Amino acid sequence: MKVFTEIASLRTYLKDERFRAAKGGQNLKVGLVPTMGFLHEGHASLLSEARKHNDLVVLSIFVNPIQFGPGEDFETYPRDSDKDLALADREGVDAVFLPSVEEMYPNPTKTTISVNELTAGLCGASRPGHFNGVTTVVGKLLHIVSPDNAYFGQKDAQQVAVITQMTRDLNMDVNIVPCPIVREQDGLALSSRNVYLSSEERKAALVLSRSLQLVKKKVEQNERTTVGELRKDLIQAIQSEPLSQIDYVEIVQFPGMTPLEDRLSTEDAHEDILIALAVRFGKTRLIDNVILTKKGL
Amino acid sequence: MKVFTEIASLRTYLKDERFRAAKGGQNLKVGLVPTMGFLHEGHASLLSEARKHNDLVVLSIFVNPIQFGPGEDFETYPRDSDKDLALADREGVDAVFLPSVEEMYPNPTKTTISVNELTAGLCGASRPGHFNGVTTVVGKLLHIVSPDNAYFGQKDAQQVAVITQMTRDLNMDVNIVPCPIVREQDGLALSSRNVYLSSEERKAALVLSRSLQLVKKKVEQNERTTVGELRKDLIQAIQSEPLSQIDYVEIVQFPGMTPLEDRLSTEDAHEDILIALAVRFGKTRLIDNVILTKKGL
Repeated sequence: MKVFTEIASLRTYLKDERFRAAKGGQNLKVGLVPTMGFLHEGHASLLSEARKHNDLVVLSIFVNPIQFGPGEDFETYPRDSDKDLALADREGVDAVFLPSVEEMYPNPTKTTISVNELTAGLCGASRPGHFNGVTTVVGKLLHIVSPDNAYFGQKDAQQVAVITQMTRDLNMDVNIVPCPIVREQDGLALSSRNVYLSSEERKAALVLSRSLQLVKKKVEQNERTTVGELRKDLIQAIQSEPLSQIDYVEIVQFPGMTPLEDRLSTEDAHEDILIALAVRFGKTRLIDNVILTKKGL
Repeated sequence: MKVFTEIASLRTYLKDERFRAAKGGQNLKVGLVPTMGFLHEGHASLLSEARKHNDLVVLSIFVNPIQFGPGEDFETYPRDSDKDLALADREGVDAVFLPSVEEMYPNPTKTTISVNELTAGLCGASRPGHFNGVTTVVGKLLHIVSPDNAYFGQKDAQQVAVITQMTRDLNMDVNIVPCPIVREQDGLALSSRNVYLSSEERKAALVLSRSLQLVKKKVEQNERTTVGELRKDLIQAIQSEPLSQIDYVEIVQFPGMTPLEDRLSTEDAHEDILIALAVRFGKTRLIDNVILTKKGL
């Protein structure tokens, strides 16, 4: 496994590998898994998926300052390169890209990639500027690696929708592959930020997956549930946990991210339905979601 | 010469050519000349430069609606594909990309690439939204063609600066090559929009190159000229032509596009100096510029 901290050397390596493969008559398929490190089994599932479908797998680890707002946890975001490299090695990664902030932003970027409409609600509303930071850095990483496939966790469902929209609108020649949420046995969605939780908060945070499963079952059993009822049920279920502070509870169409009016039935949706939550436990903001597929309604 | 109207077929062609070259041990160099068509000898000079330094030359012709503001000349912008294809053929172009608006924007784009600071003045100020349209479509074209080199005329000096900034900030793996302004024998900078001019306006428009040459000489002869004096001289020279209506007369550092205060001497600049004009003759807005190189001051 090779580790690169410089863009130029990663590029040279990838060009050489591609050129060598092409000389041998092979069109090298490259898969990219962009992460902020502090890897867990959710990331491992992305790497494993990438390993299955590509000749060469690149893992990028970069805590991207421009997607954090003022007062957010950029400085304290957990980092552990040694552990990350061990996991990458275990998953058969070919190349790890581990740039410094200076390497990625030798000067403050004057250029921004932004996606409108899809970023108006949910995390876009509660974290202003967040998605501009995400799309800009993902654009940079896609330009640096030029992958055939790029893998993203469905836990950040809005991010998946936004990045897919960006690559389509800008004709980026990459296939965006969303991968299912990976959970602990007790249901908690894996997140690098779970490490922030006290044991009490960790227990309280189970209310997220429990509430989502509750409303999912409700929809499956009763087709005429209205969006308003679902939202009410969700809010009630989450608030039953005293340590929880709701940031948002949203029910939107996916991947269009268009809102669904409260009076509508879940059957009225034209796309899948995303039920997404952002909830604080102490200082830690967690997100989770479930997708109700259109045909399943 | 091949002509493509579809993104997918152009991509397949380019991939096949690259792959075939690589199989033969050659790293195919691709040059892109993005234009809005109605080609003139200015464009021909870009194609000729591209032909010299690349194995495969792609010319794109696309009048990009999103870089035109309301009330601007998108609908009336001159178009002549047959003449363009003849010129492309003469210049040894390998592939022409001639997409429809629907092919480039099957849906209105939700994604925008924007460059700040450099776009604040000059054409960015007088044509709000223009550069977002330019950077977004150039981003798309760069993603579609993946050229090693892309060629742009220095007549749109601010555009050159903005696109260079975009490719650097976003780590786009392309070399942006600016090419000198091509002029008629009498000094008028070539532009597809010159066709709009009445014979009277055409004559009046000579004031642009004449005024720029005047101040350039002045600087060359007298190092202590202030920016304020230069601007005054320029405005006076242009206004001596009754058919002219000044849009802007700007003196900035290049390629940083940072303003120079009137009281400064041209010697105080840290970069080259761009003297740029936008002037209307009747309904036609023309731009022209000259660059004073730092060492030449």
